[in-house]
Amino acid sequence: MQAEELDVVGIGNAIVDIIAHADDAFLARQGMEKGAMTLIDEARAESLYASMGPAMQLSGGSAGNTIAGLASLGARTGYIGKVKDDALGRIFRHDITAAGVRFPTPAASDGPATARCLIFVTPDAQRTMNTYLGACVNLSPTDVDETLIRSAKITYLEGYLYDPPQAQEAFHRAAAIAHEAGRKVALSLSDRFCVERYRNRFRELADIHVDYLFANEGEITALFETDFDTALSRAVKMVEIAAVTRGVEGSVVATKSLRTNIEAAPVERVIDTTGAGDLYAAGFLFGLARGRPLAECGRVASLAAAEIISHYGGRPEIPLAEYVVAHS
Amino acid sequence: MQAEELDVVGIGNAIVDIIAHADDAFLARQGMEKGAMTLIDEARAESLYASMGPAMQLSGGSAGNTIAGLASLGARTGYIGKVKDDALGRIFRHDITAAGVRFPTPAASDGPATARCLIFVTPDAQRTMNTYLGACVNLSPTDVDETLIRSAKITYLEGYLYDPPQAQEAFHRAAAIAHEAGRKVALSLSDRFCVERYRNRFRELADIHVDYLFANEGEITALFETDFDTALSRAVKMVEIAAVTRGVEGSVVATKSLRTNIEAAPVERVIDTTGAGDLYAAGFLFGLARGRPLAECGRVASLAAAEIISHYGGRPEIPLAEYVVAHS
Repeated sequence: MQAEELDVVGIGNAIVDIIAHADDAFLARQGMEKGAMTLIDEARAESLYASMGPAMQLSGGSAGNTIAGLASLGARTGYIGKVKDDALGRIFRHDITAAGVRFPTPAASDGPATARCLIFVTPDAQRTMNTYLGACVNLSPTDVDETLIRSAKITYLEGYLYDPPQAQEAFHRAAAIAHEAGRKVALSLSDRFCVERYRNRFRELADIHVDYLFANEGEITALFETDFDTALSRAVKMVEIAAVTRGVEGSVVATKSLRTNIEAAPVERVIDTTGAGDLYAAGFLFGLARGRPLAECGRVASLAAAEIISHYGGRPEIPLAEYVVAHS
Repeated sequence: MQAEELDVVGIGNAIVDIIAHADDAFLARQGMEKGAMTLIDEARAESLYASMGPAMQLSGGSAGNTIAGLASLGARTGYIGKVKDDALGRIFRHDITAAGVRFPTPAASDGPATARCLIFVTPDAQRTMNTYLGACVNLSPTDVDETLIRSAKITYLEGYLYDPPQAQEAFHRAAAIAHEAGRKVALSLSDRFCVERYRNRFRELADIHVDYLFANEGEITALFETDFDTALSRAVKMVEIAAVTRGVEGSVVATKSLRTNIEAAPVERVIDTTGAGDLYAAGFLFGLARGRPLAECGRVASLAAAEIISHYGGRPEIPLAEYVVAHS
């Protein structure tokens, strides 16, 4: 019996977001770099939480958001990531499976708690993230479900997955399985500081393993330590397609022979930029998996990003398939 | 040494809300009464959660929302309610104390888990609630902090508190302490079905213990089993002030000698009515505690309700003090 074909399988750090408001003075006092993702230990997570305002709890994780977004667009999806069998872990599992995503990774029964990300949203709608990786450090190559990866047109990997040490191996194993099965591999560069932590390995990855590369301007220039145009030219020597977001200026989709500018979709009011890049990737991958032209992939990507920044959190509040139709 | 004077102390079921979208067909299949609060046991909570879409987790509880709203308006507040020392209990405690509320009630170290309310929001923005009371059943009269109650101008009680059996005693003890200290007692009728469960006792309460009564149209007509005008007349024979909300038609504030109609504050888009009544009470009590005229109390009440229905959940997303100023 053959497994049903999936559009996209994502692998990432399985995280529950804890989101609250903060002002710039708070970020300064806490020594936070606005817009960045900083890794923290459990003690820091506790002390930071104690200084945080009233919060909301929502499933997150970069690839988790992308895959939930794909499911909301109507794609057939799977997810691989490690939670613990605790309250936050059950929330994460509930939300991703309720979105229609296959999530076969068993929860850890001991070891660190389910990962959480303390997200501070400033009045400019920018999000600043502090991640306690918790159970994510226990994602191992054996969690990479070979049948699941082989069944998916695209395997999507988040750069953040390089932070938990064992997960890198899982990352490589997944890419190898996907390519061996004649499938495509996509990578998101995740965060400028993450790129700086793993620059050489990410370049090597892009060169050898990656077909579709997602990044924002800061990440791709950090990867190649050069200006935007040069970075993009270098990227498309390595990968088939590079899709690079530029905030309100939209995005650029590039191949070896072509560059297309995509406008950002209008948003009445930007509330929280959490998940903007993740959902851009969701929309783009949806188009790719369905064989749409690149400009169309970019249009769906922009719409998915527009929905996500119009409310708190990185998971769609309304079915994205409906949102895309309503805004087309 | 005298305790600092508080404006309002609230006593209620300490609950974390789990909020998701649902359509009318889902409510029908599950046999839910739209707009009502239904008590469920843990097994039902589990099976209902399994059938629920991706959700968000936010602190809730009727009096908890009211007190957090009061704190957000700038009031000095306290809260009494029972959580367990578990993940949801820590979320509840974090959020209410981060809002600036004193919350001296110790968490239960064993017994049922922290209460949760599964809230289904339909496309008409109406919320339908299913509450597993969990640790709330362990709120006892000894949890009623006498010093806290005596220090507050107003003690605010939610009708839902009649559901956990021991809590009724806590309820009566709090009212007795407040009045003995020359303070005021406010009651919210909470829910039409809750009124039907405890009609005679609520009437007796209103007659003997309550100075300020909060209700919506359905609740006050259920309490007196008569039409709105007659119900309101009967209410103000018992209490000093009755404030009754009527949805988009605004509210009516009545005393023995006066009735004032208050317009609902405009909202660009109603997203979720969870907490509308709770925040109306918050705004009204804020005005009362600060000695404002009734029309002004009603105006602040309407604005606080408007803020809460413009997003998911029953806790303010932005400081209500700022919201009121910006919309005045």
